[in-house]
Amino acid sequence: MAAFRIHKANSLTAYQQLVDRFQQIHRLDHATTFLSWDQMVMMPERGNEARSASMAEIAGIRHSLLTADELPDLFAEADSELPQLPPEQRALQSRSLHEMQRSWGESNCLPAELVKAKIMVGSRCEHGWRSQRADNDWPGFLKNFREVVKLAREEASLRQAAAITEIATPYEALLDLHCAGDTQAMIDQAFARLRQTLPELLQQVVEKQSTRPTQSMQGVYPVAQQKQLSEALMQSLGFDFSAGRLDVSLHPFSTGVQGDLRITTRYSEDEFAQALQATAHETGHSSYEGGLPSQWQGLPVGQSRNMCIHESQSLLFEKQLFLSRAFTEYFTPAVHRELSAASNFDAETLWRAYTVVEPGYIRVEADEVTYPLHVILRYEIESALINGEIEADVIPDMWHQRMQSYLGLSTEGDYTRGCLQDIHWTDGAFGYFPSYTLGALNAAQLFASIRQSNPDWQQRLQQGEITFIRDWLEEHIWSQGCLHGSQQLMINATGEGINADYFLQHLQARYLDEAY
Amino acid sequence: MAAFRIHKANSLTAYQQLVDRFQQIHRLDHATTFLSWDQMVMMPERGNEARSASMAEIAGIRHSLLTADELPDLFAEADSELPQLPPEQRALQSRSLHEMQRSWGESNCLPAELVKAKIMVGSRCEHGWRSQRADNDWPGFLKNFREVVKLAREEASLRQAAAITEIATPYEALLDLHCAGDTQAMIDQAFARLRQTLPELLQQVVEKQSTRPTQSMQGVYPVAQQKQLSEALMQSLGFDFSAGRLDVSLHPFSTGVQGDLRITTRYSEDEFAQALQATAHETGHSSYEGGLPSQWQGLPVGQSRNMCIHESQSLLFEKQLFLSRAFTEYFTPAVHRELSAASNFDAETLWRAYTVVEPGYIRVEADEVTYPLHVILRYEIESALINGEIEADVIPDMWHQRMQSYLGLSTEGDYTRGCLQDIHWTDGAFGYFPSYTLGALNAAQLFASIRQSNPDWQQRLQQGEITFIRDWLEEHIWSQGCLHGSQQLMINATGEGINADYFLQHLQARYLDEAY
Repeated sequence: MAAFRIHKANSLTAYQQLVDRFQQIHRLDHATTFLSWDQMVMMPERGNEARSASMAEIAGIRHSLLTADELPDLFAEADSELPQLPPEQRALQSRSLHEMQRSWGESNCLPAELVKAKIMVGSRCEHGWRSQRADNDWPGFLKNFREVVKLAREEASLRQAAAITEIATPYEALLDLHCAGDTQAMIDQAFARLRQTLPELLQQVVEKQSTRPTQSMQGVYPVAQQKQLSEALMQSLGFDFSAGRLDVSLHPFSTGVQGDLRITTRYSEDEFAQALQATAHETGHSSYEGGLPSQWQGLPVGQSRNMCIHESQSLLFEKQLFLSRAFTEYFTPAVHRELSAASNFDAETLWRAYTVVEPGYIRVEADEVTYPLHVILRYEIESALINGEIEADVIPDMWHQRMQSYLGLSTEGDYTRGCLQDIHWTDGAFGYFPSYTLGALNAAQLFASIRQSNPDWQQRLQQGEITFIRDWLEEHIWSQGCLHGSQQLMINATGEGINADYFLQHLQARYLDEAY
Repeated sequence: MAAFRIHKANSLTAYQQLVDRFQQIHRLDHATTFLSWDQMVMMPERGNEARSASMAEIAGIRHSLLTADELPDLFAEADSELPQLPPEQRALQSRSLHEMQRSWGESNCLPAELVKAKIMVGSRCEHGWRSQRADNDWPGFLKNFREVVKLAREEASLRQAAAITEIATPYEALLDLHCAGDTQAMIDQAFARLRQTLPELLQQVVEKQSTRPTQSMQGVYPVAQQKQLSEALMQSLGFDFSAGRLDVSLHPFSTGVQGDLRITTRYSEDEFAQALQATAHETGHSSYEGGLPSQWQGLPVGQSRNMCIHESQSLLFEKQLFLSRAFTEYFTPAVHRELSAASNFDAETLWRAYTVVEPGYIRVEADEVTYPLHVILRYEIESALINGEIEADVIPDMWHQRMQSYLGLSTEGDYTRGCLQDIHWTDGAFGYFPSYTLGALNAAQLFASIRQSNPDWQQRLQQGEITFIRDWLEEHIWSQGCLHGSQQLMINATGEGINADYFLQHLQARYLDEAY
């Protein structure tokens, strides 16, 4: 059993023993990453049972490595080793230890019975949801969902109590799993700014767009042609095909490790813009993963900061870069070359088609102007729910009222297109929604800095030059891993913590001034 | 660390504890299987380092599970539980235990230093071989190879001493890794029969074929069309695409588990018969895996018997079934439908092209008449080498003499096309070659039984009906797993142990009588 033990009797420092342990965990995570990719991209349907059993086995081994009795002692010992180190190394090692402890804490703070109950109750609720959503059956859903909320509140309290940094509310403890370092107070402030400005801005944009000429993009766009075009786009965005690949899955995602980054997209034959945007989005995610500091590989401190930063990279590539007029101009010849049915659309036509704004019921179909309003609505509901300010039965009413006031749409009695549309809450994933919009804000703020230090950014994009963007991101975000909290990371990169004004300025510039 | 321990204090029988342990190993093997498939089929080139580290980690965990201190006691205890069981269950459980012990023995009989030395010396020899083969550099190769032979002899002696069944020679101990249950004496006898008959039969076939009309198959066969055709072939052979898939790799192979069987082939645009034969071959391998007894899943006794039986299934599908005149007649319309450049070839033309016999230097390119002679030559050399009857320096001379006498070809001074052509020996995989030809003999013998109990087999194949073949193999071979030794398996299925006459009769019937 030697492979699983930490050799206390050897000459390694406690920190080095922890490094070995976390790298061992990382090697198991590698297996899980690619088995899971295979499951979603390659595996035939009858393969699922054996696959799940194998992945559960590895998860069990991982869990036992991360919850081993000796770890708390090693953490204490490693802490006591710090003062003897030279200052710079001490600072780095202290950050590395901090992230190890966070990772350890997340895995150790919940009793096994709660974890099991969560899985059981969550999987029942999710299973029911699959038909209840279609059947518009809120009462049926509510019955299971109350249990989910009850356990999520328990989880939130336990995580809040066990946290190694200060956590202000139970909801913030769940938020911390996805947006580590971003507080509820900070989100409240940013979202208040958006709530105050966006509904009116949206109205102006819709009015403006109602007068601009549009051209139908209807046509047949064969999948093989779209795949070529997606690969051309990835190449233009700096993706290295000797260190990754593009495939197809039901929902686009990206995963993998440095040297082997896997992106997926999906194609529909009657439309090509969605697949391209998904490809640009996932290329952003994978560029971040590919640019993480290799000297910290396999350690918690070497991983991506959190979902709010991750999403900022995908949205920067998708919304700031790919949807810009300048990049559209550069990329239009590729569209003409690869898609025979699109050879008559000029850059302006394509850009207008990419940037249509329209209030709608469904979050995942929303444009960048309306998307934050969908997220704010969910944030308001889920934070009140987890903090015990409301109970689940009021959700449909709140949903309807806020859809009405933010987007001018009624969901009264319409649960299918209302509060039952997302899968997130069914298994208790509260605290995830904000990362979509925090990511959008971070993306706009980061890109504003890039624009400022590269006044000729539009000319460069028109020529397909994007290295200056990748270099900037690599220096300020990717190479930083988890060396800083996310707000400090933003301050180091842009001079200030998250500030919604950059995003609002971006929307104004793109959709009202049509400046880029 | 609970997940790795066998809970001695619980109420499980020793046998049940062993079952749990081997199923845990099986779940890890699942991960290795698909990570390795991905490595060969999907992984981009820069992914290899991280992949190897992850697979080594899992291999280490597997090894520690299989070499845990408590296993010998559990085996003894499980043996002592047997007498209390009802006779039928006792017999099955005893077989299951036997195969667990074999698996345990194979992993535990070599000292760690020897395993490490083997890997080091083998990888050096293989690495050198990659250029030495091209450079015709036998002396350079010999220097590394002597070390490989030395360690292989050590390994053979240790395995012979530790074996739980009687092993007559050191070479037989290596043979046992691939052909468990087939003795050297048995192989000597079968190969003697072939050696005595084949060279003359070969001459007759070549003469006969020299007079038959042939048609050039030259043309351009696009890969996309060939892929469709390969999938049609798999469908015709009973492959279930909801439980498996077809891809491309450098060398065709098959792997996977029940419910998720992965086959690969390779295509060349100027030729299509090779890819089809490889597809049929791998479909045979995967049909065996798919038909293994599901009640023994995850246990050694539920696995395929050995390579000689495995190869019999692939060769039965490839040579007996796919290459038969009757199946060719059935499948010709599919060839016409999928391959535009082949639409003028009638069934007889295709069948002749598939069945050309010609002595050549290279084993992997050989037809079914000459292939055994390549294998016998290697068997004679490697068995004498491991049993200490010859030293490595005489190999080129022996190779040349036997090529001359078996196939009428000289390899004097030509090591590239002679004794340096195969990769097998470079890392010490002695005892593997015989399985190719034992598989061919078993295939012919099994198919003779199928023909005998289905006198209308040709009419059925002409109509694409192959279920009767799958059903027969499932009953007599696939569902038997490792419940019997391979000779007993053949006796149960065909009424006798391996008998080379069936293979010789098959060659006579196909190549001289042109009967099927």
